[in-house]
Amino acid sequence: MFDLKTYLDTKRSQINGAIKDILRHYTASSRIMEAVDYSLMASGKRLRPVLCLAAAEAVGAKTGKEIIHAACALEMIHTYSLIHDDLPAMDNDDLRRGKPTCHMAFDEATAILAGDALLTFAFQVLSENAASAIEQSGTHLLTGWLDVIQTIARSSGCQGMIEGQMLDISSEGTTLTLEELEHMHTLKTGALIEASIYTGAVLGKGNIKQIQALKIYSKNIGIAFQVVDDILDVEGDPVVMGKTSGGDRIRNKNTYPSLLGIEKSKEFAKLRIGDALQAINFFDNNFDPLRAVANYIIGRNR
Amino acid sequence: MFDLKTYLDTKRSQINGAIKDILRHYTASSRIMEAVDYSLMASGKRLRPVLCLAAAEAVGAKTGKEIIHAACALEMIHTYSLIHDDLPAMDNDDLRRGKPTCHMAFDEATAILAGDALLTFAFQVLSENAASAIEQSGTHLLTGWLDVIQTIARSSGCQGMIEGQMLDISSEGTTLTLEELEHMHTLKTGALIEASIYTGAVLGKGNIKQIQALKIYSKNIGIAFQVVDDILDVEGDPVVMGKTSGGDRIRNKNTYPSLLGIEKSKEFAKLRIGDALQAINFFDNNFDPLRAVANYIIGRNR
Repeated sequence: MFDLKTYLDTKRSQINGAIKDILRHYTASSRIMEAVDYSLMASGKRLRPVLCLAAAEAVGAKTGKEIIHAACALEMIHTYSLIHDDLPAMDNDDLRRGKPTCHMAFDEATAILAGDALLTFAFQVLSENAASAIEQSGTHLLTGWLDVIQTIARSSGCQGMIEGQMLDISSEGTTLTLEELEHMHTLKTGALIEASIYTGAVLGKGNIKQIQALKIYSKNIGIAFQVVDDILDVEGDPVVMGKTSGGDRIRNKNTYPSLLGIEKSKEFAKLRIGDALQAINFFDNNFDPLRAVANYIIGRNR
Repeated sequence: MFDLKTYLDTKRSQINGAIKDILRHYTASSRIMEAVDYSLMASGKRLRPVLCLAAAEAVGAKTGKEIIHAACALEMIHTYSLIHDDLPAMDNDDLRRGKPTCHMAFDEATAILAGDALLTFAFQVLSENAASAIEQSGTHLLTGWLDVIQTIARSSGCQGMIEGQMLDISSEGTTLTLEELEHMHTLKTGALIEASIYTGAVLGKGNIKQIQALKIYSKNIGIAFQVVDDILDVEGDPVVMGKTSGGDRIRNKNTYPSLLGIEKSKEFAKLRIGDALQAINFFDNNFDPLRAVANYIIGRNR
């Protein structure tokens, strides 16, 4: 039996260690780095970097420093998006990962800049590690790294996450169709999750068959992840989740439960996880962590 | 005699055309792209992309599509920084480039996201053009492009522009020494100006002697540019500048005029321009546009 808890603990501590190393390397003014550190080192699930590393290992790669740092860049982008989404002008949230949100702990200006810094930092880390990987192992790695940087930029920009957040905000108070809701979530949450798995698969030098299967896997777990997020906002325990629940209903957000009801939403998430598992069914046990993570996504309570 | 006006008109229309092409290429939701388009197509000086192209031509390069797009990426980063700096939580400005600021024309959430989108977009454009340049001309271009992407990320992140903005905000109401003020401005304005010239010089395949000279040139015009900005905030015509003047004093900002007085600030700017011109004195007339731009920086009225 694959032991997911140990696996997640190991990966998370690897990622947290690498993030600390990266931060230690830079000496900006105390205040901006304090805010970056505060938000980045809060106890997140580290789902995106874990998926990135798991995908790299699934296709048979050893995860060296460069891939781990690329995984950290994905967490930086995720964290910046949380900081900005929490701002008063956006979702106006006070609590995140069990602590006051960045603008509550510091102030609004610092939170905006900390988000900007994390986003910029992600591309710095990516390009620096691309350069160092190529210097060590040769220019045959080039296409992969440039592909990954482009994919991450597209997935987190206005063809991905930012567009999803804009749609989310502007659809508050209106009722979306299930198709529109899925489109919004595919952009808002799905795009960066897909990019995380793609990053691991490409930097891990996966073959086309593996990468194709992982695309289907990632698309499905991305949707399932968001459905469960919506369900937890209704049913979850704020203490376990580290954030306020019920916010979606207060803000009149379109969610799976609001459109399908709780039970049908749970079924829907299970179906997506089934599709994800099906897509990687024929691969060897290097894929076991990804199988376990897929199951964890619907079983999670935060 | 070198005709700067015609030169700037030509370059600006080249840059504006390329920005339009880039924007047309992407089909995000109307609202976020409207805000991006609104801020990006406002009549800016286009100083950073002009400097990038002028530096590439100075070192003897023809400026093809990829360099022009890299120049546009620099303008995207500059525009994002203006959008975020203008936000109520930061400088709270209503007017920019002669029009209502992004959050006034749209709303705060849209302005935050439009800034985020432009920053992300810049790295997308850079990595896409790196890939296309290398595909066309070979991997020998690789080191240059990766160097440029790293430099732009560093200059605009918390080792550059963002750190400068943080220092600017947190020093409001306190009095800085001239040295501290220069440090702040070197980060806030200088870093991206330096990166713009470096981008042109490296992508234009300049030699070490040229690049070294351009570093000194760019450092000096970066400082001079900011000193003149401070002077214009006191003496400038809001109609010509397209933004409110006097804001620095109202916000108790540290500026060159507040520390040195107007006359000494003007002298200081002239000395910096003298140093910039000195650094590129021995080069041929390919450097004439850069010479003219240096003089334009202290002569400008907006």
